[in-house]
Amino acid sequence: MNEALFRVAEVIGTVAFAVSGGYAAVRAGMDWLGVGVLAVVVAVGGGTLRDVLLGIHPIWWVREPDLLIVACVTSVVVLVVATVHPQSKLDTRRTVLYADAIGLAAFTVTGTSIALAHDVQPWIAVMFGVITGAGGGVIRDVLVRRKPLVLVGEIYALASIAGGVVYTVLRETELPSGFAAATAVALVLLIRVAAIRRHWRLPRFEEPEG
Amino acid sequence: MNEALFRVAEVIGTVAFAVSGGYAAVRAGMDWLGVGVLAVVVAVGGGTLRDVLLGIHPIWWVREPDLLIVACVTSVVVLVVATVHPQSKLDTRRTVLYADAIGLAAFTVTGTSIALAHDVQPWIAVMFGVITGAGGGVIRDVLVRRKPLVLVGEIYALASIAGGVVYTVLRETELPSGFAAATAVALVLLIRVAAIRRHWRLPRFEEPEG
Amino acid sequence: MNEALFRVAEVIGTVAFAVSGGYAAVRAGMDWLGVGVLAVVVAVGGGTLRDVLLGIHPIWWVREPDLLIVACVTSVVVLVVATVHPQSKLDTRRTVLYADAIGLAAFTVTGTSIALAHDVQPWIAVMFGVITGAGGGVIRDVLVRRKPLVLVGEIYALASIAGGVVYTVLRETELPSGFAAATAVALVLLIRVAAIRRHWRLPRFEEPEG
Repeated sequence: MNEALFRVAEVIGTVAFAVSGGYAAVRAGMDWLGVGVLAVVVAVGGGTLRDVLLGIHPIWWVREPDLLIVACVTSVVVLVVATVHPQSKLDTRRTVLYADAIGLAAFTVTGTSIALAHDVQPWIAVMFGVITGAGGGVIRDVLVRRKPLVLVGEIYALASIAGGVVYTVLRETELPSGFAAATAVALVLLIRVAAIRRHWRLPRFEEPEG
Repeated sequence: MNEALFRVAEVIGTVAFAVSGGYAAVRAGMDWLGVGVLAVVVAVGGGTLRDVLLGIHPIWWVREPDLLIVACVTSVVVLVVATVHPQSKLDTRRTVLYADAIGLAAFTVTGTSIALAHDVQPWIAVMFGVITGAGGGVIRDVLVRRKPLVLVGEIYALASIAGGVVYTVLRETELPSGFAAATAVALVLLIRVAAIRRHWRLPRFEEPEG
Repeated sequence: MNEALFRVAEVIGTVAFAVSGGYAAVRAGMDWLGVGVLAVVVAVGGGTLRDVLLGIHPIWWVREPDLLIVACVTSVVVLVVATVHPQSKLDTRRTVLYADAIGLAAFTVTGTSIALAHDVQPWIAVMFGVITGAGGGVIRDVLVRRKPLVLVGEIYALASIAGGVVYTVLRETELPSGFAAATAVALVLLIRVAAIRRHWRLPRFEEPEG
């Protein structure tokens, strides 16, 4: 996959993640700062978990703060939009869901690839892809006291797993690594977009009374 | 304590922890993947916290993924059982509670021992024993938005503290370290099993209205 | 700022943080151990997050456990007071709120300063000041399943940001670093005390029905 194109995917994903975090804070009745914090935490949380668990220091947004800056700028935009149009629910718009899917795809590949580079066993590298792609969303839901969405029926972490597996397998072949990345990104996108459009869901258990 | 026997205790504990995590997800109405994630997180969470706080890298389940595999397999079993018998509440069965006690005992000793090996002061090593033994359960309860059970009356963390103290004290003596481990494991088991059978509880504060 | 004076501020802050954590556990109907755990987690949580994210090992309370001891002792006091006088709400008393403000001020400066010493960009160092000062409170609220207070209207994290910015800017000048610390501490205190007395709040978004 073209390096520059991949970078674009990461930026789009960061914007979408920050929008989802910022709106989660708006819905939870947080204040302006809460919106900023949630936006940033969702955008950088997955990669932070990955780096902490792999023992990579300095952590990625300390080393290269570009995407952190993207997240901060996005949070300001969310703040302005949510203040001017309290009813705008940007984060549920199709556009943003698709942008989020691009982010999930890009971060899954980044996470898997970084873990493989740290001599982690292939199937554990796939787990790191999921942690990187979906971790921010889990932290978001814990902070706004919502049940982690990625675990209650959305085909989300599953798309990430599929992408991680394909990426890891293709990396073992003679094919160029750009091809592995491109295929994995395309697969995650395909699954996630199909899941959004066709309302695919994983079977979930019925919650008792409480 | 016999090395092999200790290993068996860790495996039994991992299975029990994974069952408790998996069922917490089932009860919280999560999906199949959520069951897998919770099972794994509870099983490996305490040791992960310990390694991250002590700065040990690669983290234990990256270094030696055996118990991670045990947790994954267990989560599949939970999934099947919970799907076939939705009313089976394996995690509240005596057998599983006792297996969980074995895990608490084994991981308390592992955690205390690893902390001591990292030149941590003895009483702080005891804290690491508790983090290792009870940390997974706290993460579980945060993810399913339940009040951390180990902090609301169960004699759970307390059993772990007692075991950690005894282990640390005995390690200071001339006695073989296997003896220290065996005594500590026995003590945690004894306290925990007695607490389960006799419904021992720590006094808790009454919650106001909300 | 005088080194000894700064140390006193840290101790006062630790006591206040532990009181806030302990009472949060009391209110949430936790048991005695829960009170101890919450008190300690709030007192050391922010600095722990900072050290883990910066990759500093051994973590601060493993290296120098003095403040950890202060937190433990405080938790015992909270336990006794809350048992004898269940209606005493120490943590909402003005005295404790002011002590908490002193802690926020001191830990903000500590966090910013440690981050700067690790060659972190200035604006990211400010973030580490906030993480150090306000992080413990966020962990507290997650554990007692409360919406993070620092994100729902209180001028809290904002006071920390202001202090971090002033500290970072003054450190760039020729002025002695003690002066930078003293000014930043004074500013955080001033803003926080004014916010408490005058009920200053950040605008927050209205929460929908749920």
